[in-house]
Amino acid sequence: MKKSLWALGTAVCMLSAGTVSADEGMWTFDNFPAKAVKAKYGVSIDQKWLDRVRVASVRLNNCSASLVSKDGLVLTNHHCARACAQNLSTGKVDYIKDGFFAAKREDEKLCPGMTAEILIKTDDVTDRVTNATKGKSGDDFVKARDAAIAGLEKNDCSGRKYRCQVLILYQGGQYQLYTFRRYTDVRLVAAPEEDMAFFGGDPDNFNFPRYDLDFSFIRLYENGKPASTPNHLEWSLTPPQAGEPIFVSGNPGSTERLMTADQLETMRAHSLPAALIQLSELRGMLIRFSSESPENERIAKNLLFGVENSFKALTGRQQALVNSNAIADKRKADLALKAKVDADPKLAKEIGDPWTEVVKADKAADVLRDRYRYMEAGPIGSSLYDYAVILVRAAAEREKPDNERLPDYTNSRLPIIEKGLLDEKPTYPKLERMTLEFWLTKLREYLTADDAGTKVFLGKESPQSLADKLTKTELGDVATRKRLWQGGMKAIAASNDPMIRYVVATDPAARAVLKEWRERVEAPIDRASEKIAKARFAAYGTSIYPDATFSLRLSYGKVAGWTEGETKVPPFTYFGGLWDRTTGKDPFALPPRWINAKGKVDPKTVFDFVTTNDIIGGNSGSPMIDAKGKVVGAAFDGNIHSLGGAFFFDETNNRTVGVSTVAITEALKKIYRADGLVKELTGK
Amino acid sequence: MKKSLWALGTAVCMLSAGTVSADEGMWTFDNFPAKAVKAKYGVSIDQKWLDRVRVASVRLNNCSASLVSKDGLVLTNHHCARACAQNLSTGKVDYIKDGFFAAKREDEKLCPGMTAEILIKTDDVTDRVTNATKGKSGDDFVKARDAAIAGLEKNDCSGRKYRCQVLILYQGGQYQLYTFRRYTDVRLVAAPEEDMAFFGGDPDNFNFPRYDLDFSFIRLYENGKPASTPNHLEWSLTPPQAGEPIFVSGNPGSTERLMTADQLETMRAHSLPAALIQLSELRGMLIRFSSESPENERIAKNLLFGVENSFKALTGRQQALVNSNAIADKRKADLALKAKVDADPKLAKEIGDPWTEVVKADKAADVLRDRYRYMEAGPIGSSLYDYAVILVRAAAEREKPDNERLPDYTNSRLPIIEKGLLDEKPTYPKLERMTLEFWLTKLREYLTADDAGTKVFLGKESPQSLADKLTKTELGDVATRKRLWQGGMKAIAASNDPMIRYVVATDPAARAVLKEWRERVEAPIDRASEKIAKARFAAYGTSIYPDATFSLRLSYGKVAGWTEGETKVPPFTYFGGLWDRTTGKDPFALPPRWINAKGKVDPKTVFDFVTTNDIIGGNSGSPMIDAKGKVVGAAFDGNIHSLGGAFFFDETNNRTVGVSTVAITEALKKIYRADGLVKELTGK
Repeated sequence: MKKSLWALGTAVCMLSAGTVSADEGMWTFDNFPAKAVKAKYGVSIDQKWLDRVRVASVRLNNCSASLVSKDGLVLTNHHCARACAQNLSTGKVDYIKDGFFAAKREDEKLCPGMTAEILIKTDDVTDRVTNATKGKSGDDFVKARDAAIAGLEKNDCSGRKYRCQVLILYQGGQYQLYTFRRYTDVRLVAAPEEDMAFFGGDPDNFNFPRYDLDFSFIRLYENGKPASTPNHLEWSLTPPQAGEPIFVSGNPGSTERLMTADQLETMRAHSLPAALIQLSELRGMLIRFSSESPENERIAKNLLFGVENSFKALTGRQQALVNSNAIADKRKADLALKAKVDADPKLAKEIGDPWTEVVKADKAADVLRDRYRYMEAGPIGSSLYDYAVILVRAAAEREKPDNERLPDYTNSRLPIIEKGLLDEKPTYPKLERMTLEFWLTKLREYLTADDAGTKVFLGKESPQSLADKLTKTELGDVATRKRLWQGGMKAIAASNDPMIRYVVATDPAARAVLKEWRERVEAPIDRASEKIAKARFAAYGTSIYPDATFSLRLSYGKVAGWTEGETKVPPFTYFGGLWDRTTGKDPFALPPRWINAKGKVDPKTVFDFVTTNDIIGGNSGSPMIDAKGKVVGAAFDGNIHSLGGAFFFDETNNRTVGVSTVAITEALKKIYRADGLVKELTGK
Repeated sequence: MKKSLWALGTAVCMLSAGTVSADEGMWTFDNFPAKAVKAKYGVSIDQKWLDRVRVASVRLNNCSASLVSKDGLVLTNHHCARACAQNLSTGKVDYIKDGFFAAKREDEKLCPGMTAEILIKTDDVTDRVTNATKGKSGDDFVKARDAAIAGLEKNDCSGRKYRCQVLILYQGGQYQLYTFRRYTDVRLVAAPEEDMAFFGGDPDNFNFPRYDLDFSFIRLYENGKPASTPNHLEWSLTPPQAGEPIFVSGNPGSTERLMTADQLETMRAHSLPAALIQLSELRGMLIRFSSESPENERIAKNLLFGVENSFKALTGRQQALVNSNAIADKRKADLALKAKVDADPKLAKEIGDPWTEVVKADKAADVLRDRYRYMEAGPIGSSLYDYAVILVRAAAEREKPDNERLPDYTNSRLPIIEKGLLDEKPTYPKLERMTLEFWLTKLREYLTADDAGTKVFLGKESPQSLADKLTKTELGDVATRKRLWQGGMKAIAASNDPMIRYVVATDPAARAVLKEWRERVEAPIDRASEKIAKARFAAYGTSIYPDATFSLRLSYGKVAGWTEGETKVPPFTYFGGLWDRTTGKDPFALPPRWINAKGKVDPKTVFDFVTTNDIIGGNSGSPMIDAKGKVVGAAFDGNIHSLGGAFFFDETNNRTVGVSTVAITEALKKIYRADGLVKELTGK
């Protein structure tokens, strides 16, 4: 449920559905359908409730979370703190395998690269952006838009305490400037053993019934002390009830509910299968690599988890496109909207035929996809390569005025990049070597041996020999990175580091591909999508929700199971079931603390549960909140049907999976003996 | 270009195209369009020419070949003898890496499991089969047909010198009883180093220009002596000329040119992506496994080659379906045929609506595919598992009358199974362990952990622990296999071998899946396809060729390059180009003998060349024959466009790739100093 590791090429966000029914919708806080909720569930969600939940909601790098104490304590998923636990582990301690519980505050450990953000203000800046792009198309459009965005993000925020981000909502129908309170000192407080947090592993992932203690706690710090966060959510000690209304506040990563039928067909035929095939090969390599030694298993664990999770999530998307009527339905909806546009001559003139423009751009994407993926997007799972790209590009971009830079390198974004680059964390040369070799092999395979791009990136080397050379880089050393970061263009030019020299040599070719991709794919799709958005506003009004953009949303629903084939799936699992399901063998093995714990915890404690909330990857760690505003669980997954949620919401079987606060409390008390944490959460 | 390792589920052969143009067609020898060839190329192919070529054409286990001397010498591809070279290698000698050249006849080595077959007679038995199935459907149809076939194969052949096989041609429109002269003592004579035979490796596979010396020689033996084969092809010392007509005689494995549009859609959406995704993961594992040590590389080499080759071949099929109009064109053709049927009331009554029956069967296949693949088809790359299945099933089947057995275990097929089982060849427990674990992991993933099938095949074991146990089998020992083979049911029941016990325990579940697959998928598709075949005969007559069925066919064409984008690809490469293309790094490295051989061979020798012949996987090793009947090359590949040949033939860019006899001769003379072989081939 992490955001997919894999950039999906043409995955762009589009304006959302005209008619919304059932528990569908990932709503912005300024447009929450409280009336519909009142009518359906009989509960009143007022502005105070919304404000309280908003400022207690936390966005992490790829996840969601919530404040649960006045001292900056944050509840999220175990898998949202995996990277942190991995980065804090060494050959001697393995916090993923063995878990981590800080006995006292001083033992809480900084999570390298982790940032936490809380949304404190939103401003509609639609006019300011659209005025800047009026009449522009192609690269001019993208440049003008990005410059306007960079200006807004720069002018409205100052200092490292805040971050401003312009969100493109309703696919260009609306631009919102979001201001976040930002915390860069985020520390790991508690995480259970992986065997408990991810019991059932990949086989059970996206399935239910489920027995996962998928929580962790982190803490926000300010000036070296726990941050003061009086506006936290209250911790519930009451288990969720069947039928009870539940609200999920978090950051769904991306949905494509309003892509055109042609775009969905491109995904189904090209981008999704290509991603699945390559993730599969990398997965095979990682599994074998992990089997070679316990140390290999340890260092590859987080990457393998990410690859398998992405693979399964994308498989679900592909299956939804292949097995449902989504594309046929979308084609009908496209035609209906187009008919409405055509019926209004003024609107028709303004809108034109964006559907055909999208088809053209998708055709260009089909031609450019492999070049973009291999030459610009680079390897999956190589921090060393990523460091080099950041260093080389940042040095060049920082010499330009803010509004002429590549979007990732504007002043408002540099602090994020800098933190990721300069926080100390381990790199694993053996693993890096393998991922680099894999990338270069695929680059040659997909571009072909005789291609000009292959000649730039590989030359007469083999993937093996080049990966060997590149792995000799010293960019794993934080002091080296710091020196190059601070030294800018001069330091880059003087560096003899093999990875830096390699990226310096290949970057012009990569930038050329990026430019072409932006001009021929991104810009036309963004421009066309904006027009479709306008058509949709004109045709169906504004009482709708935007596609997910990894920004704060609220969804509503209720605790409910579903029917799978002829089997009724109940909405709850209980602690007691864990000992029935364990086989003693990975991934159905229990960690030592739990093997004989059957008598220690109450077997009737609600463990995991499912609800009808409309969420998607990026929502991991989201608080599940009752009508009173208390947190009753943390969302950590969706069932297999939820994966089609990228394209459509089906209340009959799309389910959110969460771990209950009562289960977490019971485990903290009875198994982990984390009395301090229990007191902080419950006051008892 | 080997036949795909992977069973494609619903891949069935269907009646071929109504109208044939260009150089299209994989023609049976009794229906070769000599007139069309005469008109197009001005050369006369008479019955004598056809008979001579037919009896000089050799079918190997997965490949094609030709007799090229009076002493049983056979030309085929290097990759057709890979398994043999692998099986003859040990930790100390590696005939794949270093090549193999028998200095004298006594040094020629038996290829374990290899059989060679020469087609000596064909009889039309259509009436005898269709009378047996009249009025039957479902499992009854399949059983009656298989029993009739078993009877025909048994009655018409006796002794191990011959093999009879009933071929289903024109998708049940015709049944032919083929009689083969069979050779079971087949020995390896000569094979170059892999780096020369497969120069460019996977990146160049299915591409051109190409520099592959992809030949090997084997020899047929009879009573311990080289077989007398006076009717061999003459070896040409003249290089092929641009525009020259070329004939390819061999055994194309399978095409689906007359599948219905719905069947092609099922392949595109389900069976092909599923196969690609899994081959990818296995590929990743094998690549990593191979990188762990030179010995691992050696033992995994042949399996990795097969997996990569299949992956690329299936990718080409998938791309052809995704990027061409094949499916839309097919839908039009389906409708046109259906209209013709509907226009004739009598025919309409006889034919019914087989198109809808196929759709129903495909839907059943979608539901059953994973169960069939994992529970019945078993692991990819485990000889030990395959041995156990053969032993367990053969013991049970041999107790039944011939016509009630599973088709693979009828008396006419037992000798093939027996040879594969009892020839001595190495097994690699480390590699087997990995492929077994992979299979069990995927079985659990695709059937899910809670499935009844998973419980039978995995129980409370993990894939790792079970693979460990199964690898302790003694079936790698040929004496053990022989004892169990000869001991029948009693020996199987008494065996404590873990693999035998495992297969005994899982076989009932596997057989149940097989039965359901045959009833709900195979039988209805075969029955419906037979009806479509009849409709096609009625509508378009019989001057057509059947889909490929790994039986002997003749194709015609000419030496010609093609235009790729804006680039003209010339039809030839020359020895000289090899030293431009080598990088010194795998897979573009040259073997030691060749590194400094530039001055030794004539750089202007035609090396590889392309022709317009219509071939497909299974044709590997086929003789490329000139109008005089001389062999001028061995087909070893198709270009990337040829992969769409599974569904359609496009003369503008579909090309066969061959290695010339002049290149082979030059290499034998100048590099390998194989003077005896040169003399045998050329008389000089």
